[in-house]
Amino acid sequence: MVPHLTTALTGPINELEQRILESMPAIERWFRLEWMEHTPPFYTSVDLRNAGFKLAPVDTNLFPGGFNNLTADMLPLSVQAAMAAIEKICPEAKNLLLIPENHTRNTFYLSNVATLKRIFTQAGLNVRLGTLDPDVTEPTALNLADGSSLTVEPLVRNRGRLGLKDFDPCTILLNNDLSAGVPRVLEHLHEQYLLPPLHAGWALRRKSQHFKAYEEVAKKFSKLLGMDPWLIHPMSVPVEGVDFSEGQGLEALQAQVDLVLSKTRKKYKEYGINEKPFAVIKPDAGTYGMGVMTVRDAKELVDLNRRSRNKMSVIKDGQEVHQVLVQEGVVTHERVNDAVAEPVVYMMDRYVVGGFYRIHADRGADENLNAPGSSFVPLAFAQSSQLPRPGEKPGASAPNRFYMYGVIARLAMLAASYELELTDPEAEVYA
Amino acid sequence: MVPHLTTALTGPINELEQRILESMPAIERWFRLEWMEHTPPFYTSVDLRNAGFKLAPVDTNLFPGGFNNLTADMLPLSVQAAMAAIEKICPEAKNLLLIPENHTRNTFYLSNVATLKRIFTQAGLNVRLGTLDPDVTEPTALNLADGSSLTVEPLVRNRGRLGLKDFDPCTILLNNDLSAGVPRVLEHLHEQYLLPPLHAGWALRRKSQHFKAYEEVAKKFSKLLGMDPWLIHPMSVPVEGVDFSEGQGLEALQAQVDLVLSKTRKKYKEYGINEKPFAVIKPDAGTYGMGVMTVRDAKELVDLNRRSRNKMSVIKDGQEVHQVLVQEGVVTHERVNDAVAEPVVYMMDRYVVGGFYRIHADRGADENLNAPGSSFVPLAFAQSSQLPRPGEKPGASAPNRFYMYGVIARLAMLAASYELELTDPEAEVYA
Repeated sequence: MVPHLTTALTGPINELEQRILESMPAIERWFRLEWMEHTPPFYTSVDLRNAGFKLAPVDTNLFPGGFNNLTADMLPLSVQAAMAAIEKICPEAKNLLLIPENHTRNTFYLSNVATLKRIFTQAGLNVRLGTLDPDVTEPTALNLADGSSLTVEPLVRNRGRLGLKDFDPCTILLNNDLSAGVPRVLEHLHEQYLLPPLHAGWALRRKSQHFKAYEEVAKKFSKLLGMDPWLIHPMSVPVEGVDFSEGQGLEALQAQVDLVLSKTRKKYKEYGINEKPFAVIKPDAGTYGMGVMTVRDAKELVDLNRRSRNKMSVIKDGQEVHQVLVQEGVVTHERVNDAVAEPVVYMMDRYVVGGFYRIHADRGADENLNAPGSSFVPLAFAQSSQLPRPGEKPGASAPNRFYMYGVIARLAMLAASYELELTDPEAEVYA
Repeated sequence: MVPHLTTALTGPINELEQRILESMPAIERWFRLEWMEHTPPFYTSVDLRNAGFKLAPVDTNLFPGGFNNLTADMLPLSVQAAMAAIEKICPEAKNLLLIPENHTRNTFYLSNVATLKRIFTQAGLNVRLGTLDPDVTEPTALNLADGSSLTVEPLVRNRGRLGLKDFDPCTILLNNDLSAGVPRVLEHLHEQYLLPPLHAGWALRRKSQHFKAYEEVAKKFSKLLGMDPWLIHPMSVPVEGVDFSEGQGLEALQAQVDLVLSKTRKKYKEYGINEKPFAVIKPDAGTYGMGVMTVRDAKELVDLNRRSRNKMSVIKDGQEVHQVLVQEGVVTHERVNDAVAEPVVYMMDRYVVGGFYRIHADRGADENLNAPGSSFVPLAFAQSSQLPRPGEKPGASAPNRFYMYGVIARLAMLAASYELELTDPEAEVYA
C-alpha cells in the first residue's frame, strides 16, 4: 500500500518527528482545546512540503477537490467525520445542495464530486447538485470515466432560500472556490447554512491573511513543544500593486524577494543547511497552482519574458493578479519512484480523513507540483497500519511521518479557522 | 477480506434490507435526531442473529471486550470516534484510567485491553490501567501473546477521587462489567467522569429492562419504515423467583416459555415460516454467555438433570441466578466455512467502528455461540468496500447486509441509552 518513499532520514525533521510522537497526547489535547474556541472549516486539504530540515504547509484549500484520490479504505473515515460535522451544524438536516465548479467536464473533478455525493449520502443526506453555470437551464447529465453519470441542475432562488426545482435544502455545500467573484444568487442566504461561508472563497480570501494566522498558530504550537517555529512555518510577505503585464511594482517585489531570501539564508546558516534558498511568488488570491513562480535571485524578476509575465498576470477564471505573496520556498526532498512528491492531507471537520502524494516527474524539488502533468499516489494516512508507532527510530517509520503530516496539516486548518474568524464580515453581528 | 458467507438470500430480510437501503438518509437523520435527545453509551457491542426471515439483537454489551478482534484497518474509525466522544464528555481530559476485568491473564482479553489503550492514547490521552483486584498491591506486568506487556496498578482512592500513584485521571473508563457487585472504591466519585456509569454494570443492569427499551425503539423505527417490528425484535418476558438448583419457580417459567413459543408459532404461521420455534432462557443480569439454555418445549424444564440445573443457577463471579429472561429464539442461518455464525457489531459513541462474525463449529443454529470453542472472523463492516451500494439486488451484496447490521445494532445501542436513562439512580438530580 505504501509506495516506496525516499525521504530525508536525517536532520531536524527527525527530531521534530520524535518530539511530536512523544507529545501525542499533549498535542491531541491542545487541538481539542483549540477546537473548543474555534470552529474548524467544514473541509480542508493542505499541501505540505518536507525539506528534511523543515516541514511546512504551502497551500490550504477550503474547497478541496481530489476526494477521489483518497483510497476507498479511507472513505468510512470521511463518512464518520461528515456525520459528526452535520450533527454539530444542523442535526435536523435532510437535504444537501452541493455546488461544484462551473463549466467542468473534467472527469477527474467529476469523480471528486461523485465521491463527495457518496460521502454525504452515506452520512444521511439527500444530495443533489446545483450549478452556478448560467448555461445550464435544465437538469444535465455529466458522464464520468467509470460509466456512471452525475446530474447537475439549475439553481432556483426564492427570496431568502436557494434550492433546485422541488428541492429545498437546509445546507448548501460549496465545492466552488468563487475565484470569479461572489455570485448574487449566493448572497443574503440567511435561512440556510452556506458552507464554507462566502468569505472563504477566493473572491474575498487572501493567502497573506492565512499565513499570518498560520504564523500565530505555529508560534503557539512551537511553544507547546519547545521548538523553533521556523521548522514548520514558511516566511511570507504580501506585496501589493504588482502588474506583471505592465511591468509595474516589480522593484517593490524584488525588495521583498531579497528580504525573504536573506532571512532564509540566515536560517540556513543557523541550522548548517547547505542549500540555495529560493522564494515562491504566488497570487495572494487564487488557487489551481496558477500564477506561481520560483525565484532564486531577485534579479530574475528584471528579465521576465513576455510569456512569463502573462502567465503570472492572469489566473483562474481570468482574474488579474495585482497582489502577490512572496513566500520562503520549501524544497521537497521526497520522491515517489524518482518523481518529486509532496504530501496532501485531507480533513473533514477536525479530523484527518486521508491523504495522498502529489507527484510530478517533470518538476524540480523547488517547483510548484500543482501543475498539468501531476499525478496522485493515494496514501493510507489514516489506516491503522499508518497509525503512529511510538518507539520506532525517527524517520524510519512511514506511519510516524504520516502522523506528523496530519499534525502540521491540522495546524494549517486551525490557521484557516483563525483567518475566517478575522475576515468574517458578519463577525460583529454574532460577537 | 470478506469470508464466504452463506446467508439466507430470500424472505422478509431481503425486503427489510431493500427498505433500509432506500431509506438510508431518513434512517441516518432519525438517528441524528434521537441522539439529540439521548446520550449514546460510551461504547457498545451488539450480538445479532439473522434468521433470514428476521434479524434481531440478542445481547447488548456495555463493557465490550473483543476490540482486538476488529481488523487493524478499522482502528482509525475507533480513534476518530473516541476523539469525538472525549470532546463531548470532557474536552480538557489529559489522563484516562482504564479499569479492566479482574484476575484475568487471558491473553485474548488482555489483547482487547491493549487495543483500547492504543485507541485512547491515539485519541490524545495518557492511559494507565488500574485494577479492582485487591491482590494487586504493586504495579504488575501482564504478558501478552505478541510478546508485549501491560502494567496494571493498584487503585488509589483519595476522598472524592480515584487514581493511581502519581496519576490523577479526569475520566475513568470501565471495561469491567461489575458482575460481582459495585466495589466501594467506585462509589461516590463526583469529581470524575465514570464511564459507563455504575448502573450500566451487571450488578444493577437487567436484560429485561434493556429489551423493554428495545421494544419501544423497534416500534418507533418500524413506524418510520412502515414495517412489522417483530422483524427486528425478539419477544422477551422476565420471570422472577426462579431457583434452578432447588427446582423452585419452574412452573411459572414453563408458563412463560409456553407463552413465548405459542406467540412465536403464531408469527411463523403469519409469515409462512417452516421452522420449529424455540425459546432461550438467560439470566436477567449477567453476560459471558453463561447460564443460557435453548428450550424447544416447556416440558424440557421438568426433566432438567443436576448438571444442567447447576449450569443455569450460577454464572460469572459466582453470582446466583434468581431472575431470568425468556426470549424468543432467533435461529441463525449464517455460516462461515460451515460453522454457525452470528455477527457482532462494535460501536463507540454513536458510530459503528467495526465488527466480526462469532463462529462456533460445534453449535447448532438455535444455540448460544458465546461459549468456549467459539472463534472470530473479523469483518470489515466499515471498510469502504463495505459501505452500502444502493441498487444491488437485495441479499446479494455483503456491504448492504453489513449496513443493515449496523442499523439494527445502533437500534440496540439506542435502547441501551433509553434503558440507562430510566435506570439512572441520579436521574432526578439532573432532571
